[in-house]
Amino acid sequence: MAPYTLRWGIISTGGIATTFAKDLLVDPATRDVSDVQHAIAAVGSRSVPSAEAFIAKLRSAGGASAHGVAAGALDKATPYGSYDEVFADPAVDVVYIGTPHPYHHPNAKAALLAGKHVLCEKPFVMDLAELDELIAIAKEKNLFLMEAVWTRFHPIAYAVQKEIHSGKLGRVRRVTAELSSYAHLDERADNDRMIDPKLGGGALLDLGPYPSVWSMLVLHQHPDNTDATPTVIDHNQRIYARNGVDELSAWTVRWDGLAESRILCDFTAWTPRDCAAVVDCENGQLVIEHPLYRPERYRILPHPSTVGQITEESVHHYPIPAGNGMHYEADEVARCIRDGRTESARMPLAESRVVQGWFDTVRKGGKSVLKDLVGNAGK
Amino acid sequence: MAPYTLRWGIISTGGIATTFAKDLLVDPATRDVSDVQHAIAAVGSRSVPSAEAFIAKLRSAGGASAHGVAAGALDKATPYGSYDEVFADPAVDVVYIGTPHPYHHPNAKAALLAGKHVLCEKPFVMDLAELDELIAIAKEKNLFLMEAVWTRFHPIAYAVQKEIHSGKLGRVRRVTAELSSYAHLDERADNDRMIDPKLGGGALLDLGPYPSVWSMLVLHQHPDNTDATPTVIDHNQRIYARNGVDELSAWTVRWDGLAESRILCDFTAWTPRDCAAVVDCENGQLVIEHPLYRPERYRILPHPSTVGQITEESVHHYPIPAGNGMHYEADEVARCIRDGRTESARMPLAESRVVQGWFDTVRKGGKSVLKDLVGNAGK
Repeated sequence: MAPYTLRWGIISTGGIATTFAKDLLVDPATRDVSDVQHAIAAVGSRSVPSAEAFIAKLRSAGGASAHGVAAGALDKATPYGSYDEVFADPAVDVVYIGTPHPYHHPNAKAALLAGKHVLCEKPFVMDLAELDELIAIAKEKNLFLMEAVWTRFHPIAYAVQKEIHSGKLGRVRRVTAELSSYAHLDERADNDRMIDPKLGGGALLDLGPYPSVWSMLVLHQHPDNTDATPTVIDHNQRIYARNGVDELSAWTVRWDGLAESRILCDFTAWTPRDCAAVVDCENGQLVIEHPLYRPERYRILPHPSTVGQITEESVHHYPIPAGNGMHYEADEVARCIRDGRTESARMPLAESRVVQGWFDTVRKGGKSVLKDLVGNAGK
Repeated sequence: MAPYTLRWGIISTGGIATTFAKDLLVDPATRDVSDVQHAIAAVGSRSVPSAEAFIAKLRSAGGASAHGVAAGALDKATPYGSYDEVFADPAVDVVYIGTPHPYHHPNAKAALLAGKHVLCEKPFVMDLAELDELIAIAKEKNLFLMEAVWTRFHPIAYAVQKEIHSGKLGRVRRVTAELSSYAHLDERADNDRMIDPKLGGGALLDLGPYPSVWSMLVLHQHPDNTDATPTVIDHNQRIYARNGVDELSAWTVRWDGLAESRILCDFTAWTPRDCAAVVDCENGQLVIEHPLYRPERYRILPHPSTVGQITEESVHHYPIPAGNGMHYEADEVARCIRDGRTESARMPLAESRVVQGWFDTVRKGGKSVLKDLVGNAGK
């Protein structure tokens, strides 16, 4: 049977949108996928030439993306000088939103209201009220909506879950997870998205989704978990004095009856390379290496003492065969839309709500200038 | 020149005192020491037979301790049925205090008042007021006083400092340090010292000294540090419901103008085996393996990105050649007393005050039953 082709409209032409679009052009066969494939139907930017330049850049990207170019996945890509034209294009099935954080809500809302399915980059939106409004519109219009947590769809994410949820390592005691990267804040312009409060700057919203992924996969989705609303039991932020955004955010989440996760994001240091996430279990430890957004191996280690049942270190490799790895989430979107589903079972809206709720708690309880932020819900 | 022999009085006959006493019997030549040596002059317990049993156990310990037995280091050891008799014995130069935490202050105070030098186990005392009283007495009577932070004297401690303080790794950005060990709290009796509030139970005082060591060595003693009173900028505790002590304590210390350290102690999980302490620096990371009280190797790692100047991992071994490693601190005590010094430059009283101050802050700001503890100063 011929694969189902999902036709994408790409919103914004920045770095993340470029990476995503290039991944759409990777041959699905490299990842053993034959039931779905992708085409780029439209690109929206602030001007037509800018959208044209984006398409031209994709056409000459080479590497794993050359496959899609040769297969015609870009042949019908229309460059638009506005986002609204993308939302209105009947050749577009689904809109990918890669704009800066504060635009996610208005962009996704406009796309949904125009009748398009939506895949929206992380952080989903600026607060839970924005998210709930998007969810309500999607339900009302029977449209697909998903947060682009690409890491959830990587082979290693399934493998880690299988390892932990099988119980082989015994009861989970703690998940420690960190995504930090030294961001040279002092060298950035005031309007750089990493530090501009108007663009939702700060470590929490930029880095926070990734350590959260692993806590959600390992603990929230654990077969023994009965806590649908795990709570933030402590949190702190360190503020970047120049402009008042958080340069560090840390919080602890408790899943009642199961375990806790300690999460850290820091713009002023690097994640411990070997130990970006550590799942401490009764019989041993599972350690995921940096970077948490795209790790390719994990290790299982004995405990420091001799009490655990694991006695030897083992290393488990899950390389991404071609491209950067955003195509896995694109495949999920294609299958859901093909099958008439409005939500992904792998990245459910209820789980996006949980993580967005953590961000709200940490932000509102901190001292950053985003402390009193109110999103655009209702506007 | 014949080595100087320091004559020890050992107070208490528990596990830590046994380990310490056995280390006193290890041949100093195994660690390339020839200027000092140790003898056990007295052992104090609740009864003479118990002190005799302790001495008999040392005599038959074998292994590296057989050297001291053969060399006569136990020949003049007097068993006493009280601590006061040890303090009064003119054959004792220095008293080693290995009693449970709340007894450190009264025991050390009595020893000092009897005119003895003192080496006191960690945590030094229960609060800063207790410590300040001991310091005042020691100064007044011109006696040596030191907290038994044995790890500070290990070869690896000097090597790590040299590595970081040399500047080869560039500016330090963060020290993350954890000592956790799954302590099976539910299986312990109410009067177990790990969980009994009356014995100063909880993770903070039991485990806290060790991650603190590395923060002090790397940051407080850093040549660029100008902050003599680094402050706790955030902290949290999780309480063990059964008896109200902390099962987890976490805090962050800021050295103004230098860097921060994030410290964690947890009785309900194990330290990440590979990454007990991570010193993130401009050019790469230095990682110390579990256990932080007695690590034997560290690694230097490139950053996760390609920005650092370190490009290859290197592993650095500093094994302790014989015994458990408490003899290094004993050697320091011997040299100080031999030379008429009342304080160790390697483990100064001012630095014990810094760490004791952190414990006070974390404890008083937490919710454990030790929150409102007032020590015995003045009593």
